[in-house]
Amino acid sequence: MLRISRQFDAGNIEVVDAADVANVRLRIRPDTGSHFFQWFYFRVSGAHAQPLRLVIENAGAAAFVDGWQGYQALASFDRKYWFRIPTRYQDGALILEHCPERDVVWYAYFTPYSQERHQALIARAQCAAPCRVDSLGLSLQGRELDRVRVGDGPKQVWIIARQHPGETMAEWFMEGLLERLLDREDAVAERLLQRARLHLMPNMNPDGSFLGNLRTNAAGVNLNRVWGQADMEHSPEVYQVTQQLLESGCDLFLDIHGDEAIPANFIAGQDGAPVAAAILDREQAFKRNLRRVSPDFQLEQGYEPGRFGPETLTLASFWVGHHFGIPALTLEMPFKDNRVRPDPVQGWSAERSRQLGRDCLLPLLWELEG
Amino acid sequence: MLRISRQFDAGNIEVVDAADVANVRLRIRPDTGSHFFQWFYFRVSGAHAQPLRLVIENAGAAAFVDGWQGYQALASFDRKYWFRIPTRYQDGALILEHCPERDVVWYAYFTPYSQERHQALIARAQCAAPCRVDSLGLSLQGRELDRVRVGDGPKQVWIIARQHPGETMAEWFMEGLLERLLDREDAVAERLLQRARLHLMPNMNPDGSFLGNLRTNAAGVNLNRVWGQADMEHSPEVYQVTQQLLESGCDLFLDIHGDEAIPANFIAGQDGAPVAAAILDREQAFKRNLRRVSPDFQLEQGYEPGRFGPETLTLASFWVGHHFGIPALTLEMPFKDNRVRPDPVQGWSAERSRQLGRDCLLPLLWELEG
Amino acid sequence: MLRISRQFDAGNIEVVDAADVANVRLRIRPDTGSHFFQWFYFRVSGAHAQPLRLVIENAGAAAFVDGWQGYQALASFDRKYWFRIPTRYQDGALILEHCPERDVVWYAYFTPYSQERHQALIARAQCAAPCRVDSLGLSLQGRELDRVRVGDGPKQVWIIARQHPGETMAEWFMEGLLERLLDREDAVAERLLQRARLHLMPNMNPDGSFLGNLRTNAAGVNLNRVWGQADMEHSPEVYQVTQQLLESGCDLFLDIHGDEAIPANFIAGQDGAPVAAAILDREQAFKRNLRRVSPDFQLEQGYEPGRFGPETLTLASFWVGHHFGIPALTLEMPFKDNRVRPDPVQGWSAERSRQLGRDCLLPLLWELEG
Amino acid sequence: MLRISRQFDAGNIEVVDAADVANVRLRIRPDTGSHFFQWFYFRVSGAHAQPLRLVIENAGAAAFVDGWQGYQALASFDRKYWFRIPTRYQDGALILEHCPERDVVWYAYFTPYSQERHQALIARAQCAAPCRVDSLGLSLQGRELDRVRVGDGPKQVWIIARQHPGETMAEWFMEGLLERLLDREDAVAERLLQRARLHLMPNMNPDGSFLGNLRTNAAGVNLNRVWGQADMEHSPEVYQVTQQLLESGCDLFLDIHGDEAIPANFIAGQDGAPVAAAILDREQAFKRNLRRVSPDFQLEQGYEPGRFGPETLTLASFWVGHHFGIPALTLEMPFKDNRVRPDPVQGWSAERSRQLGRDCLLPLLWELEG
Repeated sequence: MLRISRQFDAGNIEVVDAADVANVRLRIRPDTGSHFFQWFYFRVSGAHAQPLRLVIENAGAAAFVDGWQGYQALASFDRKYWFRIPTRYQDGALILEHCPERDVVWYAYFTPYSQERHQALIARAQCAAPCRVDSLGLSLQGRELDRVRVGDGPKQVWIIARQHPGETMAEWFMEGLLERLLDREDAVAERLLQRARLHLMPNMNPDGSFLGNLRTNAAGVNLNRVWGQADMEHSPEVYQVTQQLLESGCDLFLDIHGDEAIPANFIAGQDGAPVAAAILDREQAFKRNLRRVSPDFQLEQGYEPGRFGPETLTLASFWVGHHFGIPALTLEMPFKDNRVRPDPVQGWSAERSRQLGRDCLLPLLWELEG
Repeated sequence: MLRISRQFDAGNIEVVDAADVANVRLRIRPDTGSHFFQWFYFRVSGAHAQPLRLVIENAGAAAFVDGWQGYQALASFDRKYWFRIPTRYQDGALILEHCPERDVVWYAYFTPYSQERHQALIARAQCAAPCRVDSLGLSLQGRELDRVRVGDGPKQVWIIARQHPGETMAEWFMEGLLERLLDREDAVAERLLQRARLHLMPNMNPDGSFLGNLRTNAAGVNLNRVWGQADMEHSPEVYQVTQQLLESGCDLFLDIHGDEAIPANFIAGQDGAPVAAAILDREQAFKRNLRRVSPDFQLEQGYEPGRFGPETLTLASFWVGHHFGIPALTLEMPFKDNRVRPDPVQGWSAERSRQLGRDCLLPLLWELEG
Repeated sequence: MLRISRQFDAGNIEVVDAADVANVRLRIRPDTGSHFFQWFYFRVSGAHAQPLRLVIENAGAAAFVDGWQGYQALASFDRKYWFRIPTRYQDGALILEHCPERDVVWYAYFTPYSQERHQALIARAQCAAPCRVDSLGLSLQGRELDRVRVGDGPKQVWIIARQHPGETMAEWFMEGLLERLLDREDAVAERLLQRARLHLMPNMNPDGSFLGNLRTNAAGVNLNRVWGQADMEHSPEVYQVTQQLLESGCDLFLDIHGDEAIPANFIAGQDGAPVAAAILDREQAFKRNLRRVSPDFQLEQGYEPGRFGPETLTLASFWVGHHFGIPALTLEMPFKDNRVRPDPVQGWSAERSRQLGRDCLLPLLWELEG
Repeated sequence: MLRISRQFDAGNIEVVDAADVANVRLRIRPDTGSHFFQWFYFRVSGAHAQPLRLVIENAGAAAFVDGWQGYQALASFDRKYWFRIPTRYQDGALILEHCPERDVVWYAYFTPYSQERHQALIARAQCAAPCRVDSLGLSLQGRELDRVRVGDGPKQVWIIARQHPGETMAEWFMEGLLERLLDREDAVAERLLQRARLHLMPNMNPDGSFLGNLRTNAAGVNLNRVWGQADMEHSPEVYQVTQQLLESGCDLFLDIHGDEAIPANFIAGQDGAPVAAAILDREQAFKRNLRRVSPDFQLEQGYEPGRFGPETLTLASFWVGHHFGIPALTLEMPFKDNRVRPDPVQGWSAERSRQLGRDCLLPLLWELEG
C-alpha cells in the first residue's frame, strides 16, 4: 500500500489523494505564516517497482514558477546519494515520474540538510582545535543561532548562509568551506586563518529549516528583507546577528543562497548601489578569481542590475556592504542543473556545493592579500 | 553567557534559573499527556572551562527514583563519543557536575538515537540486498512504524524495540543486530536467515522518541501495558503491529528495553505466567546461551517473579508468548553501568548495546536449530 | 602486448612462452632449495578484453596434485577483492581461463599476504595499548620473527601461523583473531585477555613468504617437520620460537594452516599420539565449540588418524602437545571452496579466514574457563 | 635486546655494532653498483623506553653532505604517521637520538613508498573508469614500468617521478595528483582531462626503489643523466619511456624530484638552455601560478642558473624540453623542513607532497588554456 509521510525534519507535503499510484495528488504546504512555498520533501513507501506519477497540483502558485522550468526533482534510497528523476511542469502542476527500485524512497526539492547534521557540524568544528563556537541567541522557536569562529588574523570576514531555509545548498557549501578551513594540512586554509578571523553562520534560519519552509522564519518573515530593520519580535535571527556584526566589525561579507530559476552559480555584488568604485573592483576581482579556480562558477548569467527596488538596503549584502563600506557579495547556486558543467544524473548537488565552498578559500585569500 | 536549549529531536529540559553556573536550576518536562518523566537531553553553550553544577530539581518525582542511585549522566562534545560525568542524587535532586572543555556540550540520560538516525538505518537496510522495509502504519503524530524483514526461513521471529522511547539503548541494540544480519560475510547471520524470517521493529514509539518522552506515546499511553487492548485512537502503534503479528504468526519473540534501576543486562521470560514447562526451558536455554557468548550478560540479577500484577498479559512478551504459545523474552539493558563488567568512563554505552545486539545471533540460531 | 611478471613480494611464475594469448605457457618455480611447489602469483598486463588461456604446464608435478581437483584460481583487479576464475586440471596441466575487464590483473593460488601488510599488522598491534611486540630472532635471510603478546592472564596460549608460507589464509586468520583481541569493546576478548597471555606468531616463515614458496624456508626446510630437531643453521625460525615456548610454558597450542586438497575447515588434534584421554576430550570439545559458533567449520572431513608416520613428533602440534601435555591443535582451511557453505564467486577467502580467526575467541575462552 | 633489521622493501642500513644503545654504530650501504648513498631505512625493536643514540658513521661520505645540515630524520610507530626526531650532523656522522615509546620503530630518510603501495596505486587507478594502465617495459631486474594514462584532450602532458628512487616524495606527489585527477566531483580535474591526455609515470626506477638506493638503478646508473643516450643494457627504464614519449609527442613535461639540501619547494626550468623566450615565459607563469595556489611553494630559493654543466641535455627536462620545444620543468621538494611554512613536528611530509601534487592541477590547466 502506498504511504506518504512528511513528519520529520524539513518534511513538507500535503496528500490530496494517494489512492492511484499513476496520479498521486499532492500539494506543497505554504511557509509558516506566509504565502510563499516551493520547498517539498517527503517519503514514499510501498511503491517498490511501481511506476509512480506524483503530481504537485499547486506548483503554479509557488514562489518562483520560473524555477520549475527545466527543473528535475531529487530522489534517494539511502539518504546519502541523491539523483534526479524525470520531472516536468505542465498546466500549473509539477509532475514527478519514478519507478522506485526500493521499498522506501525520499523525494526533495534539493538534498536536505537536517538540524541533526547541523549539530554534528557544530560539534565536529568545536573539536577541531583552533575553532570556537558560540550561539548568538535563539530563534523564535528556541533554536540556537550558532556561530563558528576560526582564525587569528586582523581582518574580520563574515559568511552567512541559509537565511532562506529551503536553500539547503547554502549549508552544504558552508560544510565544505568549514571542512577545508579545519584541514590541518591545507596550506591555503592555514594562510587564510593567519590573515583573518572568519565568522561563519551555517544556518541563519533554523526554525524555517526544520519547518520545511522555503523563505521565511517561524513568523513568516523573509529574513533577507529586514536588515537594518530587524527586531526581536519578528526577526530575532537577523537582529542578534547584526548586533555581533557591529561589535566585531566586518571587512568582507558573503551571503550564501540558492536561486530557483537560474541554472548556474553566480555572485551578485553591490552593482547599482552607491558604492565606491574600488569596492566594486574588488568584488569583480573576487568573481573572476572564483571563476579561475572553479570550473563550476561563471560570470555570464546572473541578476540584472536594478533587480531589487527600494528594498535593496534591507538585503544582507547591501546593508552590510553599505554600513561598513566593504565588498559584500551574495553567492547563488542553482536548484537546477549547472549549465556550464551539466550532469544529467545528479544535476547541481550537495557534493558540488560543498566543493564550491572549498574552492572559495583561494579567492578569499587573494582578496585579503590585496 | 550560559545558554541552555532543548529545541531538537528528543530534547527535554526546562530551565528554572540559569543565572548562576554553580547552581543551574532545571526540571524535566513530563511525558506528553502523562506524569511519567525521567529522560532528559539538553545542550549547554557558553560554559567553556566553567565548573557547572546542574541541578534537576524534580528528580525526586521521576518515574524510577531508584534509577538515580549510582547513576552517572552522559555528556558529549562531538555527539559521537559519550562519557559519564560526576552525578549524584541528593535531597530529591539530581546534581550533575562538569567543567566542559569545549564551547558546547550535550547532556543526556542515555546516548540519544534520533529520528534522522532511524531513517538512515532504514535506508541502509533496504539498500542491502535481501532486506525488505515496510511501514505497518502511522503513529498518532504521523510517523511511520517501520518494519525491516530479512531472511527466508520458515520460522517467524519478531524483535521489537523502544516501546518506551527513552530507552534508546534498545534501538542501538537493534542497529547492531541488524548490521550483523546484513553482513554478507557473517556465516552465523547467513544460517539464521536460512532458518527464519526476522521481523524487526527498531522503534515502536517514534512520537515519544521525538518528543523526548521516557515511557509514553503522544497520547500519554505506556505502550507496553496495552497489548491485547490496543486501539487506533490511543495506541495505534501497538494495534497495527499486532495486526501484522497475527498475520505472519510468531515462533519467537524478543522485546528490547532499558531498565532504570538494575545495573546489569538481563532477560525476563514468562516465569509466573501459565506457560508450558518446555517453553520456560527454552527461555532458560536462551538466557544461558546468551551468557555463554556475551560476558556482558548475566543471570543473577533481574526482575523478581511476580513483579507484574494483573496487568501482566498487557505486556508485549507475555501477551505474545501466551497467544502463540512460544518463548517470548524481554531483554533489559542498564542506564547505569554494567556491574559484571564495569566501565567507569562510559558505563553501559551505545557501542556495547550494539554489540549485545550482535551477540544475540548465536543464541537465536541455537534456539531455532533446537 | 601481453606482459607477465612476478618480480614482487611472493611472486612466483616462469614464462615459457607468452606469444599466444590462447596458450600462455607457464611453469611454477620450485620452493627455494626444494622440489616442492604449488604456490603461484603473477601479474598480467596488456590483456584487456582478451580471452586468456594460461597453462601451468608443470602442475602435475606439484606437491599436492589432489589440490588441483575442483580448484579455481584467484584473480584481482584492485588487489583488495579477489574472485575465482574458471580453472581446470587436465593432462598434468592447470588451465586458467579469463578475459580481463581491466588492463592489469593479478592471479594467485590464494589471496596474498605481503611482508608490507605483515609489518602494518605488527605496527597497528603495538599501537593498541595492551599489546607488546618483540622479535624472537631472525630468519635465515634476516627477516624478523615477530611475536605479539597480549593479555595478562595466568594461562599461556601460543598460536602460530604460516610455517608453510604459501598457506596465506593462515596469516589472514591471525589478522582477524588479533583485530578482535584488540577491539576494546569486545567483551569476549576482554575476558580472554584476563584469563590468558596469548603469544601470537603471525608468520613463522617470512623468508619463504617473500620468496613465493609453498612449504619451505630459504634453506628448503619444511618447518613443520623439524620440531624437536631444529637448529640455527637450517631452521632458525623453529629453533628460536621453541626457545621462547620453553621459557614461557604453554597451556594451549594452535598451529594455523591451509590444506591443498580438502574443501573444508577442520582441526587435527593429537589423535593417534600417546596422549591422555582428558586432553583428547578437551581437543574434541574445542572442535565442537568452534562448530557451534562458526557455520564455516565442520567435523566430518579431515585427516585420517595415522596420516603421519614416524615423523609425527616433528610436527609442531604433536611436539608441543607431547612436551607440555596439553591440547595442541592444527587448524586447516581450504584453498578450494568450503563445501559446507560454498561460494562460487570467491570460494574460501581472505575475508572468511579472518572471520574464522575472530570466531575462535569463544572456543578459546571456553577451553580456558573449563 | 636491541635488534636492527633492513630486510624489507627499500631497507638500507648496515650494523657495525649494536651492543650499546647509547652508541649504535651504523653505516648506509651504497647504491647498487655505485658510490652514491644517502637513503636509509631500518627497523629497530627491543628499544622500548630506552634512549637510543644511532650514529650513521659514513654520513660524511654521502652524496649530498649539505643535505645533513638542518636535517631531522623521520620515525614511525604505526607506519602511517611519520614524525621528525632530533638529529644532528657532527664530525662526519649523522646522529639520531630517540627514546621510542613503542616496542618497534622504523626510521627513514623520508616516508617510504613501497612497491606494494605502488601496485595498489596502479590497481586503484585502473579501476577508476577513465583510466588506462600499461607497462612500458621491464626494469633491469624485471619490474614493470607502469604508465597511467588519463584524459581525452588533444594536448599530451607527461609527468614522471622517482628517477631517483630515494626521493620518495616524488611518488607521494604523484599519488596526490592522480587521486585528484580521478575524483569524479573535481571540476578542475574534469576540465583538465578534457584539454589533455596525461601520461603519468609514478615510478621511473622500481629497482632502485626496492633496493633502497638513493640515485641509481640496479646497474648503478643515475637515470637523470642518460636522456638521449639511454640503452636497454644499462638504462632500459629511460630507453623504453623515451620510445613512448616520441610516439605520443609531448606538449608539457614535468619531472618530480626531491632535493637533499634546499629546504623549500621549487621548480627548475630550462633557464640557461637555448630555449625560446616564449617557452621560458610559460615556465615562469607556471611557477607563479603554483605559488598563487599553494602557500607551500616559493620562488626565491632554487638552483643557480648554470648549475648543470655539459651534461645538461642528459637531464630529462632539458632533453625533453629541447627535443619538443616545450616547457619542461623539474619540480623539487625538500627532504628537510619547508622554510616558508615550517612544521617542527613533521617537517616536509608525505601528506604535504600529496597535497602539492593536487595543487598542481590548476597551474596545469591554466598553462593548457593559455
